[in-house]
Amino acid sequence: MSKIPVIEIFGPTIQGEGMVIGQKTMFVRTSGCDYSCDWCDSAFTWDGSGKHLVQQMDAEEIWEELKAVGGDRFSFVTISGGNPALLKNLNHLIQLLKTNHIKIGLETQGSKWQDWFLEIDDLTLSPKPPSSKMTTDFEILDDIIAQLQQTNNQSFSLKIVVFNEQDFDYAKAIHKRYPGVPFYLQVGNEDIANSDNEKLLSELIGRYEWLIDQVVGDSELNDVKVLPQLHTYVWGNKRGV
Amino acid sequence: MSKIPVIEIFGPTIQGEGMVIGQKTMFVRTSGCDYSCDWCDSAFTWDGSGKHLVQQMDAEEIWEELKAVGGDRFSFVTISGGNPALLKNLNHLIQLLKTNHIKIGLETQGSKWQDWFLEIDDLTLSPKPPSSKMTTDFEILDDIIAQLQQTNNQSFSLKIVVFNEQDFDYAKAIHKRYPGVPFYLQVGNEDIANSDNEKLLSELIGRYEWLIDQVVGDSELNDVKVLPQLHTYVWGNKRGV
Ligand code: SF4
Ligand code: SF4
Repeated sequence: MSKIPVIEIFGPTIQGEGMVIGQKTMFVRTSGCDYSCDWCDSAFTWDGSGKHLVQQMDAEEIWEELKAVGGDRFSFVTISGGNPALLKNLNHLIQLLKTNHIKIGLETQGSKWQDWFLEIDDLTLSPKPPSSKMTTDFEILDDIIAQLQQTNNQSFSLKIVVFNEQDFDYAKAIHKRYPGVPFYLQVGNEDIANSDNEKLLSELIGRYEWLIDQVVGDSELNDVKVLPQLHTYVWGNKRGV
Repeated sequence: MSKIPVIEIFGPTIQGEGMVIGQKTMFVRTSGCDYSCDWCDSAFTWDGSGKHLVQQMDAEEIWEELKAVGGDRFSFVTISGGNPALLKNLNHLIQLLKTNHIKIGLETQGSKWQDWFLEIDDLTLSPKPPSSKMTTDFEILDDIIAQLQQTNNQSFSLKIVVFNEQDFDYAKAIHKRYPGVPFYLQVGNEDIANSDNEKLLSELIGRYEWLIDQVVGDSELNDVKVLPQLHTYVWGNKRGV
């Protein structure tokens, strides 16, 4: 069976962000990304620094490892990256998880369609705002959202990370472009190298309050949710928790 | 038109907890409760201390006040208490909000049924654990959940606030009794009089980590969400934000 490049498998823990915030879940992180966001907090998945961690695993091996690590203490698996949507053959893993009654969450920036998107229980599309220095391909994103809406799959959402006012305007434009899609604004973490958790926390909460103020004052962002990254509140910038 | 006892109307702000955590919303808080939980953070709605704040308002007056305070900056209204489920005549307000395309969230402990439960977009049932010193009437709760499930209204959830191990066991029993219902565990705030926000925050995050550890280690709580009260992270114990 074809191999999937896996950079870490851990859990169970809590999903710290987005549409299933708080969910008890295992994580499978795949390596490789077609973007290189300025503030990427998972750069080790694509910049070479985590190369030694990558294991080529088939779906059965991933499932065995999930059970070895998580025992019977999970019923939800989150697939993250990098950009897992680069991997056409993820469908094997997705089928295997579904056969075992596991719910699946997945996040991608929306730069590439995969047919298996339709099998994901909670799919987050997170196009990247100007501060990332990446450019959104709206032709592709329009197409992805149209396909998801067409199949009446309502378990997907848009999530925009906001670092500054330009990003906030970008978020507004995205919400306007796709008005019916559940919409999340998330506070950006500007300080991904900070290991002083107390200082980090007070910065992050200050940024969260700023973002809430922006949204609360804006009549073009009404039916939206504003969330922090909860895992950074609890564990700071530590990885694999 | 019949009057509703309202103790505060404020917003827009962010819903800090539960199934619509992060949602931009207005709040309407009604007065009166049939419980008197040991750690109630809204005791001013029922213990007499907020008596001077109560206004008897009809649905139209509440809607006018919502617009006066929130302008065009909201499309979601959260009705909280006290226990708003004591008020049969809330149906007038609910109809009026729906006519104006406003989504509605509401929380109750599940001690009383109202037919208008079926009109609520996001209904949270939050039965109270042993630390509250209240006793759950399971005959009523069973009946409420059966009625909600019968009508195929899937936009309701159970939320249990957990202060200690006994509460945790209660949460497990509730999840077991109603296995199909979306299930939230929430960290209890033991320190509702603390105005030292920094100290409060570090306590609350410590309690959140404890609760995550309990859930992560327990195979009887798998498809669940574990959440803090985000508003206390941002605003401490301040009211009306
Ligand atoms: S799309 Fe995600 S993983 Fe890829 S570079 Fe950007 S933030 Fe990092
Ligand atoms: S049910 Fe809610 S409002 Fe009533 S006493 Fe308990 S915590 Fe307070």
